[in-house]
Order: sequence, then structure tokens, then C-alpha cells
Amino acid sequence: MPGDLPADEFRRAMHRVADMVADYLEGVGDRPVLPPVVPGQVAAALPAAPPAGPEPIDRVLDDYRTLIEPNVTHWNHPGFLAYFAITGSGPGILGEALAAGLNVNAMLWRTGPAPTELEERVCDWLRQMMDLPPVFHGHLNDTASISSLVGLAAARHRLAGPAGLLDVRARGLSGRPEVPPLVLYAGDQAHSSIDKAAIVLGLGAENVRRVESDDAFRLSLPALREAIRRDRDLGRLPVAVVATAGSTSTTSVDPIAGVADLCREEGIWLHVDAAYAGSAAICPEYRSLMTGIERADSIVVNPHKWLFTPVDCSVLFVRDLPNLKAAFSLVPEYLRTGDSGVTNLMDLGVQLGRRFRSLKLWMVIRAFGVSGLQERIREHCALAAWLAGEIAKDPRFELAAPVPFSTVCFRARMPSTGGTAEEEDRFNETLMAAINARGPFLLSHTVLRGRFTLRVAIGNLRTTRQHIEALWRLIQESAAELEG
Amino acid sequence: MPGDLPADEFRRAMHRVADMVADYLEGVGDRPVLPPVVPGQVAAALPAAPPAGPEPIDRVLDDYRTLIEPNVTHWNHPGFLAYFAITGSGPGILGEALAAGLNVNAMLWRTGPAPTELEERVCDWLRQMMDLPPVFHGHLNDTASISSLVGLAAARHRLAGPAGLLDVRARGLSGRPEVPPLVLYAGDQAHSSIDKAAIVLGLGAENVRRVESDDAFRLSLPALREAIRRDRDLGRLPVAVVATAGSTSTTSVDPIAGVADLCREEGIWLHVDAAYAGSAAICPEYRSLMTGIERADSIVVNPHKWLFTPVDCSVLFVRDLPNLKAAFSLVPEYLRTGDSGVTNLMDLGVQLGRRFRSLKLWMVIRAFGVSGLQERIREHCALAAWLAGEIAKDPRFELAAPVPFSTVCFRARMPSTGGTAEEEDRFNETLMAAINARGPFLLSHTVLRGRFTLRVAIGNLRTTRQHIEALWRLIQESAAELEG
Repeated sequence: MPGDLPADEFRRAMHRVADMVADYLEGVGDRPVLPPVVPGQVAAALPAAPPAGPEPIDRVLDDYRTLIEPNVTHWNHPGFLAYFAITGSGPGILGEALAAGLNVNAMLWRTGPAPTELEERVCDWLRQMMDLPPVFHGHLNDTASISSLVGLAAARHRLAGPAGLLDVRARGLSGRPEVPPLVLYAGDQAHSSIDKAAIVLGLGAENVRRVESDDAFRLSLPALREAIRRDRDLGRLPVAVVATAGSTSTTSVDPIAGVADLCREEGIWLHVDAAYAGSAAICPEYRSLMTGIERADSIVVNPHKWLFTPVDCSVLFVRDLPNLKAAFSLVPEYLRTGDSGVTNLMDLGVQLGRRFRSLKLWMVIRAFGVSGLQERIREHCALAAWLAGEIAKDPRFELAAPVPFSTVCFRARMPSTGGTAEEEDRFNETLMAAINARGPFLLSHTVLRGRFTLRVAIGNLRTTRQHIEALWRLIQESAAELEG
Repeated sequence: MPGDLPADEFRRAMHRVADMVADYLEGVGDRPVLPPVVPGQVAAALPAAPPAGPEPIDRVLDDYRTLIEPNVTHWNHPGFLAYFAITGSGPGILGEALAAGLNVNAMLWRTGPAPTELEERVCDWLRQMMDLPPVFHGHLNDTASISSLVGLAAARHRLAGPAGLLDVRARGLSGRPEVPPLVLYAGDQAHSSIDKAAIVLGLGAENVRRVESDDAFRLSLPALREAIRRDRDLGRLPVAVVATAGSTSTTSVDPIAGVADLCREEGIWLHVDAAYAGSAAICPEYRSLMTGIERADSIVVNPHKWLFTPVDCSVLFVRDLPNLKAAFSLVPEYLRTGDSGVTNLMDLGVQLGRRFRSLKLWMVIRAFGVSGLQERIREHCALAAWLAGEIAKDPRFELAAPVPFSTVCFRARMPSTGGTAEEEDRFNETLMAAINARGPFLLSHTVLRGRFTLRVAIGNLRTTRQHIEALWRLIQESAAELEG
């Protein structure tokens, strides 16, 4: 009878993997963050056809070591400061390994009692940590793209037209003269996942109003009010306003309280995208930057971004759980159970299948504790504040945006001989490439008000003051060399 | 500086986890498949508030052992025969543990060169194994719910109305008199994820035509043709036909070649949901049951269902990759890179973030080899055939559907004194509950033509002939006892 890998062979290989992971994490900082590969190089080293017969597991692990591990971008590297830096922390990795062994699909309470109840409990822990009221119910999705899609689908579900509930779930959007164009509102700094949600939900990318932001990259309330009025005048129907707490480019926070007032006034759903900065809300001093978030209808926060939980792990909090279920629940006979009064996670979104994601989050929160998590968030913000201070003091550089959390946006002002904006942009682009080519650091960029801008995003637990000091020296030296 | 778990502590804990996973898998068959818990019992044992300070990792692992592990439903149990039985195989678990350590987000080629190229290569291996033509491009999603959503969104994107491309991506579906109601077609045995996709995409659940099936639960071609004609006559616009290869209740296979002919004739997108049975297509004798699948526009197959890969891992094959990208690609400035000629996985669907899922699938295919995977699929089908033969021979039972793969649908015909259909249904329901209450096996049910039907779904690598023989004895004894 052909079965799984023999038990003793699996145990031995699992111990080998334990050491491989531990070795990797101990040595990851000595590698270049970006692997030295060109497109197609890994593919060329992989056989074009699958293996006809079985191969020894140790040969597969050997190939992993020589072909795969050196050719990933090292997200767990202390010098990874691009996009949003993240950490697959030790406790989280242990949780993922255990979950893989169980291989639970917690689509129903019946198919995963502990996973279902742990998920609700751990999300409630996070709710308390973020100082959100008990009315919110949290559950886990894979990504913020899905959490926002689900939140906005719930908003769409609640829409009422002239004749009452539009019942988009049953009747769809097209071929219905009574359904006007549906519109989403978000700041011009909001994440692209909002546009993608509008595309998927059948609202259309053109029906996302990207409202202008102020000097600090925060959505402008008067502009939002005006955009809503204009659409209403034209007979369009607002679905939701998306306020961002920690925008991707600059980590700016929209004026959530003002947006919440306007949403209440207008009867519009408020979705808060706190995928990044929601983690910082566990510290009171950062939570106070997000006042009004407690009045949202839905909130997304990603523990896999800045709460040291391995990807993927995104929490969606909703105020109205029955509405969410009404938007999504769909129980065919083969998934019916006799269990009553339980949460079946499949009722809460798009996906039927549900991986056991709460285990890693539970282990992270317990191993670090609330105080330990706060301490790490504060340390990352302090590192960013130090770097921002150095940049502000140096006339050859300028900060490109305020630094509310752990991400610094800046530009070199060289060539110091003075140049056009285009020349300065090109200089900064070359500077970033030069820094990244050195190996120990990876930065990414954005464009702010049309200007090329470098970003340093701090979020890995291995990143220390020494790393950020070394980076600052490298930035200064590289800029001087390029100018020289 | 507060960092991650200290390196030596992590290494030691990782070795402890290696043994915990190995111990679990060696002993899983001795547990009851369903844990002995009632709703709320696990939640009650979890503190209501998060821990203020850090806890030792060994205490967390101890709690895992006593509170979590015994209270999951044991999907890796040889007696798990419910829904679709799956396996998180040894090689797959090793792959997940390694991926957790890397914590790569392969949203861009640049952020995961090896993960991106391995994903394309491994999906191409599977394409070859399934004897699909090279035109198909495969990539990984988390679940079939998402793979089907993405495939159907690509179908929606290609729609043309009277004035050419409807451009649903940009303009949405509502408030547009030129966009008629959009309709999906699927057999009455198709999976609920198709309805959910219709809801999410704004088509509406009522616009899914559930076409009647024949005596063997296969979509009826004449009924499909008639449904399309009726909708066209009413000015509605067909988006796609979904053919199922391995339906959830009975694993029936729709007449894909005939559906493909009709779709070509009508110019309609063909999506094949082979989430379960697509894995069997790696054996020529089962592939031949799916003739026509090679003419589909999109195909979903789930290695996490019957290819021994831990959840989550779903492949979406599409014929027209540029159309898929046109439906979804959306590149904000902060995700722009200079890399050209590369695949950026974020362009291929809803989610921006992409976990390194190809690693486990690569390790499974290599460790078992194509012949090893075929052997295991054939063994599961042989076990199902044996059980079906026993049931067919026993006048107290009846097969409720043909058994093309590894899933057996049956009913007890007792009480033998003769009873109404309702009484017999209630008897079978009680029988299932009695079997499941015993511990060593978990069955699930469906309803076929209004009749309660038991299912035995074989898909775990630990399930042997001895288990299925013991199950058959238990079914017979339980039925006799209940009747007695």
C-alpha cells in the first residue's frame, strides 16, 4: 500500500528542516537582501518535465538549499526596508509548522472546533489591544486585498435604492434600470487593493473617486464632501468611503473622525484600511492618531505586516456580523451540519476553505505579550524617528513626508549644483539602485506629487540601531559618490 | 533592543515542534476523528484578555498540546472520509515549514524570484501530468473559491456587448443601459463557490442557471442548450459555462467535450471546475473521463484536495494569459520595478500578497514522483471500488450514484420492513450519526434527488484496505443495531 513518507524518515527530515530554518534565520543578515539572479535563471535550473519516479527527500532538501533558498528575496533580513518590512517571527514559524501538520480546513465549526474558537478569541484579543468596542467581530483572511473586498461587499449588500434594499446578492448589478452607478471614495493615497475590489465587485475602476489629499497626504474632508455631493446630484449611489490609517507611500492617516461624521451624516459605510498602522494602534500614543476608527463599519489590519506573524494573516473587523453573513452565507446540503449557535467561518467571506491561521497569531501574542509587542512597535518607530532626524539635519537631503510611524520618505537634493526636478528625480532613482546593488539593504520608492521618493520602512525584528546607522552612512556615501 | 525569540531558544523549540508534528502524525489514527468538544468549550478555556507580558514558548507549546491539538477535527486521520478527504503529506509539511521560515511575499518577481519561477514551473509540471496543451498558464491561489472567481472575472472581462468590449473593469455593471443581465451556467451538481463568485462579481445569485443533470448526475446538454437559447431570446448575455469534473456530492463528470462544442458554437467562455478530480487526470484512464477539458478557457484543480499538498494550494490554468492580466493588473507607483519580461504574480488575480505555496507542491511531486502520485490515486480509487462492490452485493444497502473515482455515495434501505422515503432518510441520518459517534471514522452526507445520502470520500494517504473493511463492518453492524 503506497502511503506517506515513512514515519521515521519524516521525523528525521523534520529535524533537518528545523535546523535549516534556524540556520537560515541566524545567517540571513549575511546575505544580500536581493538575490544575485536574473529573470529566467532559476527556471532554467529546474527540469522542464516532472520527475517520473520518487526522489529521496534529502536530495529535494539539498536542492532547496542550493537552488531555492539563495534565490529568494530575503524578507526576514534585517536590511529589508522596502515596501512594508515584515517579520516571520520565531513563535509564528512554530505555529505555521504545527498548523501544517494538522492540515485542518476550518470551513465549518465541525471541521475545526478549536481553530474556529481560537480565531474568534484571538481576533477579540487584537480588538481589545486596538481599543475597539466589543461590537466588532473579527475573523481572519489571507490578505488585506481579500479583507477589503469582503468589507466592501458587505457595504454593497446593505445598499438601498428607491425601492428598498437593492438585493445585489440575488439580482446582481446589470440590466437593472433602478440601480445607478455605484461609487467608492478613497484618498489619493489609498491602496490599490481598493481599486481592485471595485473592479471585482462590478463597480468599475472609474467609479472609485480618488479624493485629493492635503500637504500631509491625508484625505481632504471638504474635497470628499464635494465629491459625494457631485455624485449624488448626478444620481449616483455612494457605496462606501475608505479611510486609510497608514497609507502605503507615506503611512499618513486620514482624518478618520471627520470622515466618520460625514459618513454618518450621509448614511455611507465607513471602511478603514489599517492594514499597516492598525498594529501600532496597540500603543495608546499611536491609537490616538486614529481617533474615529471605533466608529467604522469595517476595519482591516494585517498581523502579517507589523505584528510579526508569518504571511498570510489579515483580520477583518465588522460591526454588523449578521449583514456580513447575509452578504456571503450560502450553505449547500453537503455542508449542512446539526451544530447550532456556532460560527462557520465559510459564512464570512469568499473562500470556503479556511487554513488554521489563528494558531500562529495566538503564539505570537502569547510569546511576546502585549507589552512585548508594544515595545517592538515603539522601537521601530524610534529607529525611524532617529533616521528622520538625521535626514532633517542634513541639507543635502529632505524629508518628503511626516513620519508618524516606522516609515521614512526622503529625497536627496543633489546634485547640489542645482538641477531640474527631472534631474533630481533621476539622481534619486540612481541613488536607490546604487544602495540596493550593495547588498545589505533593500529600499523601495514611491512617487509623491509627481516626485520620485525613497522609502525606508522598518518592520523586521532583526533590524537594530546599528543597521539604520549603517544605512544612513551608506546613503550619504552613495549620494556623494554619485555626485562626485 | 527587543528582537525575535533568541536564536538558541528558537532552534530548540523548532526541534520540539518537529517531534510534536511527527508524534501527532504517528498517533493520529488512535484518536477519534471528531474531537469530543461542545461549542464554546475551547473558547471557555482561553483567557478573555490577551496576556499582558511575554510567556515562555514552552508553556505556549504545552497549551497547544493540551488545549488545541486534541480539539481539532483530525483531517490527517486515516478514518477521515468526509467532505473530500485530504492529506498534508510529509513532503508537503516540510515545504510549509521551510516557507514559513523564509516568509516571502512573492507579489513581484523582484520580491521572490525563485518563488515566482518555481510556481510557474511546478504548475507547468502539473499541466503536463494532466495532459493539457502548452497554451495553458498555471498559477497558484489559496482556494478553488478564489481560482473560480478569478477565472470567471477573466470571462467577464472578455465580454462584448453591442458596442464592442463592455469594459466592465473600468465602467462596472450598474447604471449602464447597454449592459444586459449577465448569466452563468452550471450543472445542478456544481459547487457552491460558483454561486458565490456570481454574487461577488455583481452578476447575482439568481443569474446562475443550475442546469438539470441526467441519471448519473452529469449536466444535461440539451437542457444547457435550451437555457442559453431562452436567455438569449430575453436579451441576456451569457458570461461562462462551468463544467464540473468531479462534482462535490457524487464526483460526477459533466460531458465536457459536448459542453466545449456548445461553448465554441455560442462563443461562451468554458470554465472547468476540476478542483477534486483534476488530480486524477494524472492517470490516463481517469484523464479520458474528462475529454474536452483541454479546450477549456480556464481550469481549476486543487493539489490540496487530492495531490497530498497541505492546504492551501489551488491551481488556476488559463488559456489567455494577456486577458487575465488585462482583467486584473493594476500597478501603483510603489510597486513598479524595472524588471521586464517577468511574471509578477500580483497581476494574476485579486490578492496582492502571495505566499510561497509552490515550494510544498514541488516537494510533493519530487518526493512521490509522477508514478508514485498515480499509484496513490489508483489505490484510493481501488479502495472505493471495493467498498462500492460490497455495497452493491448487499441487499440492505444501495449505491446512490456511480463511483468514477474515490468517493462512494450510498444509502441503507432499512428499515427492511419497508418504509416511506422520509423514514428511510431519517434512518440514514441516524446511521451516519451513530457511525460518526463511534470515533474511528467520519462520514458526511449529501442530498441527491431529495434523498439523504451517505458519502465515503477516500483521499488520505494513511487510509488502507483495513480501514475501509473495518468501516464496512461498522456500517453493517450499526445499521443492524439501529434496526434491531
